[in-house]
Order: sequence, then C-alpha cells, then structure tokens
Amino acid sequence: MNVPDSRLSINQATIKHAPLDEALRVTAEAGVQSIGLWREPVDHVGLDVATRMLADSGLRVTSHCRGGFFTLPDGERRRAALADNRRAIEETAALAAAGAPGSVAVLVLVAGGLPDGSRDLLGARDRVRDAIGELVPDAAAAGVTLAVEPLHPMYAADRAVVSTLAQALDIAGDFDASVVGVAVDTFHIWWDPQVREQIARAGREGRIATYQVCDWRTPLPEDVLLARHQPGAGVIDFASLTGAVIDAGYTGDVEVEIFNADIWARDAATVVGETVEAFARSVSPHLP
Amino acid sequence: MNVPDSRLSINQATIKHAPLDEALRVTAEAGVQSIGLWREPVDHVGLDVATRMLADSGLRVTSHCRGGFFTLPDGERRRAALADNRRAIEETAALAAAGAPGSVAVLVLVAGGLPDGSRDLLGARDRVRDAIGELVPDAAAAGVTLAVEPLHPMYAADRAVVSTLAQALDIAGDFDASVVGVAVDTFHIWWDPQVREQIARAGREGRIATYQVCDWRTPLPEDVLLARHQPGAGVIDFASLTGAVIDAGYTGDVEVEIFNADIWARDAATVVGETVEAFARSVSPHLP
Repeated sequence: MNVPDSRLSINQATIKHAPLDEALRVTAEAGVQSIGLWREPVDHVGLDVATRMLADSGLRVTSHCRGGFFTLPDGERRRAALADNRRAIEETAALAAAGAPGSVAVLVLVAGGLPDGSRDLLGARDRVRDAIGELVPDAAAAGVTLAVEPLHPMYAADRAVVSTLAQALDIAGDFDASVVGVAVDTFHIWWDPQVREQIARAGREGRIATYQVCDWRTPLPEDVLLARHQPGAGVIDFASLTGAVIDAGYTGDVEVEIFNADIWARDAATVVGETVEAFARSVSPHLP
Repeated sequence: MNVPDSRLSINQATIKHAPLDEALRVTAEAGVQSIGLWREPVDHVGLDVATRMLADSGLRVTSHCRGGFFTLPDGERRRAALADNRRAIEETAALAAAGAPGSVAVLVLVAGGLPDGSRDLLGARDRVRDAIGELVPDAAAAGVTLAVEPLHPMYAADRAVVSTLAQALDIAGDFDASVVGVAVDTFHIWWDPQVREQIARAGREGRIATYQVCDWRTPLPEDVLLARHQPGAGVIDFASLTGAVIDAGYTGDVEVEIFNADIWARDAATVVGETVEAFARSVSPHLP
C-alpha cells in the first residue's frame, strides 16, 4: 500500500456507514492525515465527544458538511433552517479548534432545491444569497468560512439551485472572502465550458475554501445522487482540473467525497485503502 | 379539445413508435400545423416516399433530427460520420421543400460524447467546431441551417460535449448565422444561471434556429435520457423562458419534443391530443 499523500483528506461521506469513531480510526490507521466531517455522525455522539475524538485522532479537519438548504420563502421553516445553520457554524468552529494544526473551519453549504410546487428558480436563487447574508455575521464572529458549493445542474430542481462555479462566485462576491468562499468539486463542475477560467477567478478572488475530487462515469445509477466514483474510474480529467486549482493558488488539503452505494456497502478500512491508491494514481501526480 | 396553437409543432420523438405515415396523420388530424421529423422513420420509407407523404399531409416541417456525433478523432469513423451528416443535410433540404409554406430547413446537431476511453473534453469540443466547419459549405449550398443543440450537462460524457447555450453560440459564432444557429430546448438549459442573457444574445446574433419545449421533473427515471415530460408537468418556468425567446425575436414554430417511456407506450393520437392541451396551458399564454 502507498504512503498516503499528505494532502489527501477522506470526506466522511465516502465511508458513510462508519460511525465517527470508526471513521477517525480507519482514516488515521491508513496514514491519512485529514478528514472532512459530516453533521449527522457528529450529532450522533454529541459535539463535545466528537471534538475529543477528533483531537485524540491527531487528524486535521478539512470541512464540515453541511449547511444550506435555505431556498424556502420567509416563514417558520426558513427561520428553523437558519437556526440550524448557526448551530453548524458553531460546530465547524469547535471541530476546527479541536483538529490537528492545519485544520480549517469551513462549512460547506448546499443551497437547496426549489420549494415544493415552485417554478421560481430566480426567486430561490435570490433567497440563497439573502440567507448567506444573514449568516455572514455569525460566521465572521466564529472565524468560519462558508463554502458555497455549486452542484451539478442535474440537481438544480431538488438539491441545489446553485449550479455553476461562476454563479457561486457571484453570490460569494457580495461578501468578504475570509467569510464566504466556494467549494470546488470536480464531479459537479467538470463539464462546464467555463470551468478553468472560473477556477482561476476563484483563486484570484481568494475564494477556494475546499477542493473535493471524485469521478463521473456513465451510465448513471438509478439514484443519480449516488453517481460518484473513485478518481480515475471515470471521465474527469484530474490533470486539467487539479492543475487549474493549484495554479489558482490553492494550498489546502484535497478531499475525496464519494456517494456510491457499492462503495458504502464495503468495509470502511478497505474503502479508505482504495481511496489512498486512487488518489495516488489520479490526483497526486498533479499536485506540486 | 382545444384548437391547437398555430405555432405548435409535434416533434416526432414525442410519438417515437409511430411510423412516418401515422405520425403525419395523427398530427394533421389533431389540427396541428407542423411537425419535426427524425431521420430513422424517414429512412424507413425512403426520402422520396417521405417527401411525398409530407407534401400530402399539408404540414410544415420545423426541423430534421438529427446530425452530429462528431467528436471522434480523425479516421474512418469520423469520415463516415461527416458523410452521414452530409446525407442528413440533403434530406433536410428535400423535406423543407416538400413541406407546407413556412417550412424551414433546420438540421439539429447533437455533438456527441467523449470517445471511448477519452478524458479529453477540450479536444472533443474542438473537434465539434472543426466538423461543423467541414459541413458549412454543404449546408450553405443546400440552404440548410445547422442548429447546434446544447444538451443538459448530465449528458456531457456520453451524448453531447456541448453543454450550454453560451458554448453553442461561441461555436456558431465562427460561421454565418444563416448557416449555423442553435437549438433552444427548455429541458437542456432551464437550470443555467445565464439562460436569459444567452437567449437574448442568441436573438441578437440571429441564431435561434428552433425552440423546443418539454419539462423537467424529479426524481429522474432510471434512464436519464427519458426524463422529459409534457410542459406543465414539472418545474420549468415556461413564462420566463418562452418570454425570453419571443423577446429575442423568434417568430417560428415551437416544437414539443419528449423522450419518455410512459408517453411512448401510449397511442400516438392520444399523446398528440395531450400535447395540444399541455401546450395550450403552459406555452401558448406566453406567445404573442
């Protein structure tokens, strides 16, 4: 087995069924140095226990996934979503403080889809910007960067009305770059004719809060949410995209985040080992 | 049943299993005035018979679907694809000449996906432009407009490396607007944050060769190629998009093109009737 790349981070979604203790253990035992966490497994043990577990693991934390889902019109459910995002901001700060040196306080935001029965895409997009504006003071106070993640356009109706890196940067551009950045995920943006110029722009504007990698392969599975693969298993040109991210000045860790039922069905330690090897083959050659 | 909108055209894909004679008959009997044809059912009877059938139907023809699939590198298969596109150009001209007054000679081009085993998206996109350049003299001589169709980004790997209207317009921009235009299909572009400005640009540049409508609804079916629905059955804002197309100066017919296994399983005349009603409810109110 390879010595893992020092910049590889295992996003916890890749080993979704592992509870937090197991996720931290198999990641550290593989020699990987960092991990991206998810709220549900953290909530399952409680934030205090989670921060102690993370500190004991010796791992850096590279992101907290995820906030967002704020395309609802004004009302109780929108206020509840904003309150939940504020809790996520606090969690992100606490986890980053507990992680090993080099940890970052980045909360990934998935915008949310159209409200039920709505066709008002422009309105939903406006509400995303408004919601981020409401969260910015809290994020700034907590030292947390909100990472607006454009999702693939096939999720625009039901998952995320933010569909391109340009659009995410336009939203982020209303706010200070230390507080609002973007998530660059190869799966979501590889197809975009503007991808390289928008990655360069994200770098110029100081907005690349996290770089996540996984691959696209056809045919898509029945649930298109689970269409992700290990780097190298599909058609994405990691040389081109990783090169663009590095040229844009990104110096952080690189998360592998995979939603895939076949991968989830396997032993977490095995999956981490496979991820180490896929990353070494398909991503590491393009890192400095 | 409504009197069909005079601008409604039934794209033959919507009644995929009807042979050409039946497709023409059920369309005309419903009082619809125009049809978009597909190559396979035309080939099935032969072009001479097809042109006579079309002339007898009294219908206008609004497009011929489809050419393209030219992302292959140089070689025999690429030359064969170009030769096939030249035949499609000749068919398009013959059919437009045989259709009722107001028929247009528009050949819709679907770019094609990545060649097997390739990750070179930029190279594939360059070859699309090159191939169109090779076809332009033939199209110009035949009086045919090539309509570059951006397909939804979920098809970028295996169907069409042209993914946005902006990209299609950039390609078309190298050629005369009377010979190379774009296909504006709501299903493929509704999610695009730039969609309204790019439709306006397409109008300014004289490039809207065809306007096609159908709807997007989640969850997507197992085969995402068949994810299309009648206008009004999903989340697309036809007021916004149709308004943009009309404001951009488009005066042509509007095709309903649906790929959907449930719709294909039903009687063609029934589907045409449902299409007439869906169009009346969701598209006609936004036409002048």
